[in-house]
Amino acid sequence: MTPEAPTRSYRRLSVEERRRQLLDTALSLFAHRAPEEVSLDDVAETAGVSRPLVYRYFPGGKQQLYEAALRSAADELRQCFAEPARGPLAGRLSRALDRYLAFVARHDAGFSALLRGGSVVETSRTTAIVDGVRRAAAAHILGHLGVEEPGPRLRMTVRTWITAVEAASLIWLDEDKQPPVDDLRDWLVDQFTAGLVATAGRDPQTAAVVRDALGLESGEAFGALLARVLPVPGAHDRLPLPDAAEPVRETLLP
Amino acid sequence: MTPEAPTRSYRRLSVEERRRQLLDTALSLFAHRAPEEVSLDDVAETAGVSRPLVYRYFPGGKQQLYEAALRSAADELRQCFAEPARGPLAGRLSRALDRYLAFVARHDAGFSALLRGGSVVETSRTTAIVDGVRRAAAAHILGHLGVEEPGPRLRMTVRTWITAVEAASLIWLDEDKQPPVDDLRDWLVDQFTAGLVATAGRDPQTAAVVRDALGLESGEAFGALLARVLPVPGAHDRLPLPDAAEPVRETLLP
Repeated sequence: MTPEAPTRSYRRLSVEERRRQLLDTALSLFAHRAPEEVSLDDVAETAGVSRPLVYRYFPGGKQQLYEAALRSAADELRQCFAEPARGPLAGRLSRALDRYLAFVARHDAGFSALLRGGSVVETSRTTAIVDGVRRAAAAHILGHLGVEEPGPRLRMTVRTWITAVEAASLIWLDEDKQPPVDDLRDWLVDQFTAGLVATAGRDPQTAAVVRDALGLESGEAFGALLARVLPVPGAHDRLPLPDAAEPVRETLLP
Repeated sequence: MTPEAPTRSYRRLSVEERRRQLLDTALSLFAHRAPEEVSLDDVAETAGVSRPLVYRYFPGGKQQLYEAALRSAADELRQCFAEPARGPLAGRLSRALDRYLAFVARHDAGFSALLRGGSVVETSRTTAIVDGVRRAAAAHILGHLGVEEPGPRLRMTVRTWITAVEAASLIWLDEDKQPPVDDLRDWLVDQFTAGLVATAGRDPQTAAVVRDALGLESGEAFGALLARVLPVPGAHDRLPLPDAAEPVRETLLP
């Protein structure tokens, strides 16, 4: 994470570079230990710098270091979401997820520690930082969906998917990053599509969003998901479609 | 929660009744304040009993009270999951969710406090209690699906849905229990079905589970979801189905 750390060289760094080096060092230590077990002395030792130097950057001590590291991670996460509003939505979501999962893989257990909390340095302030990232993610997604005033069902669909992404990332880290990251990303995109479509069945706003999204997909994501999913019940003679499903047949047959 | 609390009467209660009364009182206090701000004295005052009596039941102080309250809540949650393995799966899931959401509604902000953590009394032990409930929920669901050795994709689908249920419950409480609880329950069942079906598109084990589940549904849940969902893209002339989707048409037409 900090290539120069083990050399103990006092390479001249700018204030911003030094701060970043110390935060990266702290994050790498959080990857292996609970935040409250990481002292400023540990950071100094690992970064190969003097203790007074670390204390100069973080005069508020451990709590300030932890919050700064969390904020730095949060900023990095927010940058993952930045994606031009062009092209099929599934592609945009895939690219954002690629960046997000690269972040998760890079910070590994540090990511778990940050998200799982359960530490004495956890405060309403640190919780607010993590919640801020979730809110930013939801705002990005709703922006890409072209929704300015999301109703409760659409909002809940997006927010619960974001939680599912976090949970899946933690499980993925627990299971030694299996399945491969590309499979995880595709699965997450599928889950988003499926969740959105299921909500669309009961919510007119979400139904409109799905229709607009389909217009951008050129058969790419939604059609491919449907193609994978619908043959699943093929072992049965037919899908147990009630009479209300009659329009389905018309919809599927041009 | 504790009907006799305001009367300050020293009604004779059995040890178990008294313990339950004190735990219920504690949970109701946690509903409005962070766990670390609830003292044993507060519990004594609210329950209308003497301070020594509360200290007799919880000699380990605040931390013991909190863990006992959390354990009691966890036991109650586990009971929500108990559902006979009979009949359509969507019905079983709905009934379990009804009990779970009744628990959420009853404990309100106390439920949020328990799940959100972010408190100084949060420890690896309390985290383990909450995780134990999640694991129990996953085991129940996999049991109902008839799966003994879930592969990573099926396991991830079930576990992320459980996280989504928690997140949706917290959002629901934040939004003054809107939408109505029955709508929330139906939406959660839809999301489970959709998530499972989406995973089935890439995972043979999950595909087999979905096929077996369909056999139990008699067109009830899956068919109804499909009937609601598939007409959504009806505004387009046709679904953007790629060539790979050809089997879909055969599947849907008996």
